[in-house]
Amino acid sequence: MIQLEELKSKLMDSDDNSLITYVELFRPFDLANGVEKLEKADQFKLMGRVPPKLSAEILEYLDPIVQYRILNHFEETITSQVLNMMSSDVVADMMLAIHRYQAEKLLNHLPENYRKKIQTLMTFPEDTAGSLATVDYIAARSWWTIEQTLTHIRKIGHKAEITSYVYVTGHKGELLGVVSLKELILAEPKTEISEIVTKDVIYVPASMEQEAAAELLSRYDLVALPVIDEQNRLVGVITVDDLIDVIHEEATEDIQKLGGSQPLTDTYFKSSVFQLYRKRIVWLLVLFVAEAYTGTVLRHYEETLSEVIALAFFIPLLIGTGGNTGTQTVSTLVRALAVGEVQFRDILKVIRKEVTTGLMTGVSISLIACARAWFLGVEWNIGLVVGITSLTIVLWASFVAAVLPLILHKLKADPAVISGPFITTLVDGTGLIIYFTIAKIILHL
Amino acid sequence: MIQLEELKSKLMDSDDNSLITYVELFRPFDLANGVEKLEKADQFKLMGRVPPKLSAEILEYLDPIVQYRILNHFEETITSQVLNMMSSDVVADMMLAIHRYQAEKLLNHLPENYRKKIQTLMTFPEDTAGSLATVDYIAARSWWTIEQTLTHIRKIGHKAEITSYVYVTGHKGELLGVVSLKELILAEPKTEISEIVTKDVIYVPASMEQEAAAELLSRYDLVALPVIDEQNRLVGVITVDDLIDVIHEEATEDIQKLGGSQPLTDTYFKSSVFQLYRKRIVWLLVLFVAEAYTGTVLRHYEETLSEVIALAFFIPLLIGTGGNTGTQTVSTLVRALAVGEVQFRDILKVIRKEVTTGLMTGVSISLIACARAWFLGVEWNIGLVVGITSLTIVLWASFVAAVLPLILHKLKADPAVISGPFITTLVDGTGLIIYFTIAKIILHL
Repeated sequence: MIQLEELKSKLMDSDDNSLITYVELFRPFDLANGVEKLEKADQFKLMGRVPPKLSAEILEYLDPIVQYRILNHFEETITSQVLNMMSSDVVADMMLAIHRYQAEKLLNHLPENYRKKIQTLMTFPEDTAGSLATVDYIAARSWWTIEQTLTHIRKIGHKAEITSYVYVTGHKGELLGVVSLKELILAEPKTEISEIVTKDVIYVPASMEQEAAAELLSRYDLVALPVIDEQNRLVGVITVDDLIDVIHEEATEDIQKLGGSQPLTDTYFKSSVFQLYRKRIVWLLVLFVAEAYTGTVLRHYEETLSEVIALAFFIPLLIGTGGNTGTQTVSTLVRALAVGEVQFRDILKVIRKEVTTGLMTGVSISLIACARAWFLGVEWNIGLVVGITSLTIVLWASFVAAVLPLILHKLKADPAVISGPFITTLVDGTGLIIYFTIAKIILHL
Repeated sequence: MIQLEELKSKLMDSDDNSLITYVELFRPFDLANGVEKLEKADQFKLMGRVPPKLSAEILEYLDPIVQYRILNHFEETITSQVLNMMSSDVVADMMLAIHRYQAEKLLNHLPENYRKKIQTLMTFPEDTAGSLATVDYIAARSWWTIEQTLTHIRKIGHKAEITSYVYVTGHKGELLGVVSLKELILAEPKTEISEIVTKDVIYVPASMEQEAAAELLSRYDLVALPVIDEQNRLVGVITVDDLIDVIHEEATEDIQKLGGSQPLTDTYFKSSVFQLYRKRIVWLLVLFVAEAYTGTVLRHYEETLSEVIALAFFIPLLIGTGGNTGTQTVSTLVRALAVGEVQFRDILKVIRKEVTTGLMTGVSISLIACARAWFLGVEWNIGLVVGITSLTIVLWASFVAAVLPLILHKLKADPAVISGPFITTLVDGTGLIIYFTIAKIILHL
């Protein structure tokens, strides 16, 4: 971990060597963490004094706005150098985050050919595979020999981010296949690359959703995923590290949704209190209004309740247990749906499994519930009501929590909308109806 | 997607070519999916008729026990061939899953040198970095020239799973650094490899927890992670696809824990009903017993309750809202802790943020709550009690849900233990006390 005080004191030192020796102890990721915590003036000082290559590497981990601020502060020649050394996907993201006029000015620092590629990347909407692609890959034409390809790699390979594969394209830039560097090394230098190309390559259209791309990559154990446009032309390649970020983000979103809020668009500390409020209040109000009908239910049974006030003692316990059961089931199933372990066509299997499990947990719970009622010293028939109700509510919660996420998935809606709080609220009201119905029957009210 | 009926009909056909043309339409992962669904006899038939290389690739995606069953059914020579073509990490996992005697018999099919490496992999405990490592990487001695290294790659590179890096080791097999294939191609053939080696390589000890290894890989954007033993000797390399699996598993576990059950050790359908029961009943009972004290609380206020029965109407609504608020906060924070966005030292910042957000959601909710009370036609002072209580409970839930996960994290316990159901249960009982205290004050009971 980089020590902020030490970094600051090194910055005070006018000796460049001492500073550079110090920063070289750290990796770009860790240095970026340090830079984030510095004041603006110190950020400029530090980034201006480290070699351009390291500058470019550190910038990759910073926010687009900070990237721009720092790039903009360099002398023109340094701006050019650093910008050209940054990964193309990071550059494209930054260009999209800053003002159009600023972006145009910065783009002029890039050679025309590269600029055009970046501009193509900038056309892909956020959250698509295209928006993750980099153009820093190595491509070879199908009619080149191995030798020609190796010469090409020696010439342009220094910048490339994708270093283990060469993508083979045809006359119009269409993707024909892939060759690994290892295969290149193993092959005869005079062979034409088309002879050793693996044609059966997994690729994605630029418009594919990024989660689908991530799923493909993890299913087939890939390390890079070529991206093509509507004319089958290769427009970029996604690297595994970007898809790992997508996997992390997806899990975070699902967890937040299952917790009953809309997912944050930013990290926790970067989200303002107002953003937290906005993401949470929506579901909170919806659920509040839905939960409000428990009041109607209870009012409906007001007479029963005032006759046997002891029934009220068990309300939180019974509906709480229903909610807990539902939450357990929902979270397991939503995750299983997200990773593709469960599909809609499994619905009968899922119901059987969940209801059987619910029967087992329900019986266990209901025995304890009877014991609890006895312990509280209420009448034996109230104990019976509580026992039967707890079993019924657990079964009901298991069933509802099994069915709803699968139906939502089938309707192409996000099953994570069925959150813990959602299922809890649903079971609360219905659970009360179950409770009082059973009570009225058994207690002859 | 592979069609089971079609696959079966191709199996009936005695023409090997037709079968092989058919299976070549699919990837090993998809074929493995098909194989899983076949009867044992058909599994043997299919795997015996496809080329050994494809057999080996399909086997990689099957369960260890199925792998063994199929390997064991081959003729001896085919068993040898296929086993030698499988990835070493998969082989090691299989050996650990089958009976020791069976493993010994199978290991005899491997050349001695390779067998020893597999046996080393087998010594690493589950869930450690070592257990994920493969020995199918390319290593070069530091004193070799580039030319020698390339010759070595041409000789052994066919099997290697790690194809983009060459790991450089010293006299005793200690890890000295790494060279990418691209750097090899770019370098002068007569250069000694030690001159171009990158010494500052990120590696992990075999005993490191696998999640920590996954975190390192995703933080530093790596595609492979060398694993060393206590003598700094290179014992294997972890590939990114295995660590992606770890990332997925971690997220699944956290989601299941946040849903209030212990995480499943297997996928949903591979977990039996009894396993589901066992993973869920523990927390369900703990929470049930904890929730039972709501009964004690209510009994304590029995008199108040029978005097103003309308108070009962709002019990589920008020404690439900508290639970929802708590669940939202807890899930956001547990995830933020898991990905390292939040740490214990941020506790004051987190409390301030959550309580401020809670104040905003609480005020919104409490306005609606007053409206609801008015709507239900209860007396105005009960409406006041409900309004004040809902604000207080939301604030209380926000505070508790902010503090508990951070404290657990500090105590090196898993913050995901503070699940939605846990916080809901906690807020239920305490929420009732808040409710009746406020009621007694305002209604002068």
